[in-house]
Amino acid sequence: MIRKLFLNANIHTPVDSGRPAAGEDQGRLVHHEKGALLVEDGLIVEAGDEVKIVGLSLEKTIHQTVDCRGYCLIPGFVDSHTHMCFAERREAEFAQRISGVPYLEILNQGGGILSSVKSVAGASEDDLAANTRTHILSALSLGTTTLEIKSGYGLDLANELKMLNAIHRSADTSPVDVAATFLGAHAVPLEYRERPDEFVDLVINEMLPQVANQGIAGFCDVFCEEGVFTIDQGRRILTAAGTLGLGLKIHADEVHDLGGAGLAAELHAVSADHLLAANRENLALMAQKGCVATLLPATAFSLGKPYARAREMVELALPVALATDCNPGSSYTESMPFTIALAVMNMGLSPAEALTAATLNGAYALGMADRVGSLDAGKQADFILLDGESPAILAYHPGVSPAKAVYKRGEKVAG
Amino acid sequence: MIRKLFLNANIHTPVDSGRPAAGEDQGRLVHHEKGALLVEDGLIVEAGDEVKIVGLSLEKTIHQTVDCRGYCLIPGFVDSHTHMCFAERREAEFAQRISGVPYLEILNQGGGILSSVKSVAGASEDDLAANTRTHILSALSLGTTTLEIKSGYGLDLANELKMLNAIHRSADTSPVDVAATFLGAHAVPLEYRERPDEFVDLVINEMLPQVANQGIAGFCDVFCEEGVFTIDQGRRILTAAGTLGLGLKIHADEVHDLGGAGLAAELHAVSADHLLAANRENLALMAQKGCVATLLPATAFSLGKPYARAREMVELALPVALATDCNPGSSYTESMPFTIALAVMNMGLSPAEALTAATLNGAYALGMADRVGSLDAGKQADFILLDGESPAILAYHPGVSPAKAVYKRGEKVAG
Repeated sequence: MIRKLFLNANIHTPVDSGRPAAGEDQGRLVHHEKGALLVEDGLIVEAGDEVKIVGLSLEKTIHQTVDCRGYCLIPGFVDSHTHMCFAERREAEFAQRISGVPYLEILNQGGGILSSVKSVAGASEDDLAANTRTHILSALSLGTTTLEIKSGYGLDLANELKMLNAIHRSADTSPVDVAATFLGAHAVPLEYRERPDEFVDLVINEMLPQVANQGIAGFCDVFCEEGVFTIDQGRRILTAAGTLGLGLKIHADEVHDLGGAGLAAELHAVSADHLLAANRENLALMAQKGCVATLLPATAFSLGKPYARAREMVELALPVALATDCNPGSSYTESMPFTIALAVMNMGLSPAEALTAATLNGAYALGMADRVGSLDAGKQADFILLDGESPAILAYHPGVSPAKAVYKRGEKVAG
Repeated sequence: MIRKLFLNANIHTPVDSGRPAAGEDQGRLVHHEKGALLVEDGLIVEAGDEVKIVGLSLEKTIHQTVDCRGYCLIPGFVDSHTHMCFAERREAEFAQRISGVPYLEILNQGGGILSSVKSVAGASEDDLAANTRTHILSALSLGTTTLEIKSGYGLDLANELKMLNAIHRSADTSPVDVAATFLGAHAVPLEYRERPDEFVDLVINEMLPQVANQGIAGFCDVFCEEGVFTIDQGRRILTAAGTLGLGLKIHADEVHDLGGAGLAAELHAVSADHLLAANRENLALMAQKGCVATLLPATAFSLGKPYARAREMVELALPVALATDCNPGSSYTESMPFTIALAVMNMGLSPAEALTAATLNGAYALGMADRVGSLDAGKQADFILLDGESPAILAYHPGVSPAKAVYKRGEKVAG
């Protein structure tokens, strides 16, 4: 067994009470100004005041002692909503969009999500895995130690499986924990435009059983939106996925209030994501069911849209998570610090609420809170040393990476 | 003489026409998709299509050839407005401010600008120079190859001189070109609160002559704002500075429309900065005089304020520059990529307009366009290789450093 002692750390962390942190708990952090962390085989024995932790360690063999030099120590970020498995960027399309070219015109030129579908179809699994790994390592360098990646640029069985396999291969060759989500219902393929229910049948009858059989996805997600999938279609897909043992997620009420938040509550989804247009009643239902509201401020930034009503959600005791939504169309960033800065400055979350959202509640949105998301005993020693005094540094020093070092299971993996 | 050839570069650059780029010229870039750069002793001989540049080089001895691997090559950023010489961060004050503590209460607790004055008074010139250098190197890693730094946390002769000397020492030990600005009139010291004109006399009669004598500042700046200095006081100080041969800058119309933009036009200042509240007539006067409008979107972001009306300025043919305003109170960022992303997404500048603002027009705002700010022949070979196809990458991939490599006078200095 390898035992490590991290000393002289200014620790700020949410505390896991066994459920996602909501309401006042969302902003409640434990602070040890001169703190320490005792780690055995990559797992946390205890985090606390240095004097106490050193006391705990007295009779034990310590194989490595690390001086954290007074840096702010927080849990590694859990980025619980990304599409960072893709084959090609869409920079030219972005330039068109911000110059005012209407989205429909971009779509007609072969842009938009279907251009990512096309490039994924043309890419090998090797190339996809390599591209995905590049994004994972970029995220890691910025402090993300656990992340979710969705399929959804395949839209047929072979390419969805290729994406999920590429996600696992990229994960296996990087130190980050990766949760894979099957998002076969990300868009309606062109050839099914006139008969979307047949595509839904395909997802349910052909794709889902294979995905479940191969055990290559922990979650199933659906994009419910006008022009994409209806609530009824979403319910059919997610119900089938639930029967197969997958956890459930929904792209809900991003542009129009179709009732995706209500569906998430109804089906006990782990999270509903986006939620810009969700109504208060459905948000309250989500809160009742402990369903996490995953907010994606970098998407609002990149699309020039209003931000989700994070304060209303905190007041409803709805647990809020933050994620990058990293994807080549509407939010091309791997940066959780940037996401947090946007949430603090533009959504009104306090730095403490944003930290909980970016760690513990993200872990709950991935069903991984038993292992990651806070510095509670028994969890993995995944943490970041920040060049600052508190989590406020993430909003105070925007645009600059605050991570001096990133640790995964007690090992330094970046910085 | 050392001759270098940079090949296989996707070059995007503004072109220097002998004055700041305004109106349609603000967004006009030259693009060489397969471009090259010939450099002699750190100066650009020519940038252009690779075939042409290779032809130029045929009979010449090339000491080094660099393959730019198709990366996007743009001029190094010119950050023309910073206060990055300071002794201590103010993270706790930031946390208070965003939690809703009124600024007056923060001031009464000893916070605000006067807390930076206090910490600078207590710091040695060595420590100040070391802190400043840390910020310079952070900016450099993000692509800034030329920057301005203001004094103004001294507010008495000894401490203003200490700051200016620290700025020069930090500049001498880093590869970035640094312009120093004397901002003795940054705030009214507490002891002059009841007799601000006496402080103005002190700035004019005691500080300015010493600063000019020692040749340690290229510019004089004044903060004209309600509760700080009036337009008349600003005019007195800047007129005196002009007589001593200093270039003129103004913190103008940030909160209230006092007419700072008009004063900048009247005195032929090189720039007026902030300008959120400036009226259209005075902006038009600035345009007539070729005075640069330096906009600071990271300050709006960090203060949660509206952004300056960049589009109106471009339409008035007023040349717009972008700068970080890096300072420990209202905008703690060294990142020009972050500043550009904000300007594109929140001010409506096109990526091309923003690039011109962050390079050529910044150089004009520092009177250094003869040497930096574009890739025209005879200028320094200061450039960045970006992991993207065009300047749009700076807004398309926010929160992540796009600089693969940074070159100063033809030497790789970061990345």
